[in-house]
Amino acid sequence: MRISVVPVPRVLAGGDAGTGVIVVDVFRASTTIAAALAGGARFVLPVADVEQAMRLAEPYAANEILLGGERDCQRIDGFHLGNSPREYAHEVVAGKVVILTTTNGTQALAAAEDSGTVFAGCFVNFSAVADAVAGFDAVTILCAGNNGRLSLEDFACAGGLVGRLAKRTSRLDDAAMAARAAYKSLKENLTRSLVSTEHARRLAGLGFRADLEFSLKVDSIPVVPRQSDSRMVLLSA
Amino acid sequence: MRISVVPVPRVLAGGDAGTGVIVVDVFRASTTIAAALAGGARFVLPVADVEQAMRLAEPYAANEILLGGERDCQRIDGFHLGNSPREYAHEVVAGKVVILTTTNGTQALAAAEDSGTVFAGCFVNFSAVADAVAGFDAVTILCAGNNGRLSLEDFACAGGLVGRLAKRTSRLDDAAMAARAAYKSLKENLTRSLVSTEHARRLAGLGFRADLEFSLKVDSIPVVPRQSDSRMVLLSA
Repeated sequence: MRISVVPVPRVLAGGDAGTGVIVVDVFRASTTIAAALAGGARFVLPVADVEQAMRLAEPYAANEILLGGERDCQRIDGFHLGNSPREYAHEVVAGKVVILTTTNGTQALAAAEDSGTVFAGCFVNFSAVADAVAGFDAVTILCAGNNGRLSLEDFACAGGLVGRLAKRTSRLDDAAMAARAAYKSLKENLTRSLVSTEHARRLAGLGFRADLEFSLKVDSIPVVPRQSDSRMVLLSA
Repeated sequence: MRISVVPVPRVLAGGDAGTGVIVVDVFRASTTIAAALAGGARFVLPVADVEQAMRLAEPYAANEILLGGERDCQRIDGFHLGNSPREYAHEVVAGKVVILTTTNGTQALAAAEDSGTVFAGCFVNFSAVADAVAGFDAVTILCAGNNGRLSLEDFACAGGLVGRLAKRTSRLDDAAMAARAAYKSLKENLTRSLVSTEHARRLAGLGFRADLEFSLKVDSIPVVPRQSDSRMVLLSA
């Protein structure tokens, strides 16, 4: 298996279905998408901007649709939900279509489109998403980052996935080696390290401290969101 | 001190002289520049392309100038020297102007220009360059990478510098934390890790194995190349 990590978002070259692509946005889009699908949402449609979200919601009846997302970490005016995964509980999302727009994660999903078989991965579905790509010839892990910069939590999660996927015969690119090495150092105090970053402290300051804990619970939501015609749907077992 | 790492080259925002910027290209431009200046070159002028190198050489007498650099790891046709730091010995470079163009390192130096007080750093001048920026309020470590991708050797060197510079009161960005963590895992088998990358194996395959060993000898060339009017000159002690 060839394993690559993209530490800072960029549009990926066109791949084939034999390439597994994991888009990692720990705080919070990947976690929120996993939570929404586990909660019974029909699908999550990640979109780049607010206007597009509004427009794509129009065809749906009011009781069919939820608009979710954030700008500058906060819920968008007129939207039903923010980007807190804890808001996407079964009683809220079951049977609903969720249209989601966030600063980093939904942009990264757009950048990954058509680059292979695309999944959303993070700590809450760590083992499930690793198992989902285990049979692929090539795996690319695209970190959503934070406004075009490397995010420690996404890079560390990518490194954990590399460590889990790599076998003696695997070929790792430099970023995959770097991420795996970083994860190895960080894993013993993972939560403490990942809540100490500027982004995490900002989320905590805005009242989202519980989101950080929620997002760092490994394997707590063992579902695999897969991109299909721009929608994120549950990978059927 | 604020410490940032830029794992993949980008043009840095304008800084002031109070920001120290270290451009790291372990294999091989930073190492070659350190070697050339330690060998007595008057200055090294890093330029982006071959045509510019030729043009800037024109005003000099033939015995004053050396054209150096590589494309695709190999010496450029018509140039005196390649990008092997071992070529830049005292008997070759003393008193000469070196015009250097490489795939990654000289581009990274161009991207760093005017972003602060800019140095070239790597393993051979690790402690010297760390000491040179120790008094700055902010330090940015710009990794040259490899064709726009993260290079393990540059990221690890950056991480080592972060570990050396960071104090309890320092503020690290996420990439600085990630690089420091990666270095911590890698340092016990640093040489083995850094010669196993695709780029290093390619250099070794082209006959440059000795360059790898040369470039990984920590503190073997304790000089500090500083950017001044686009030229790299020795920082006077």
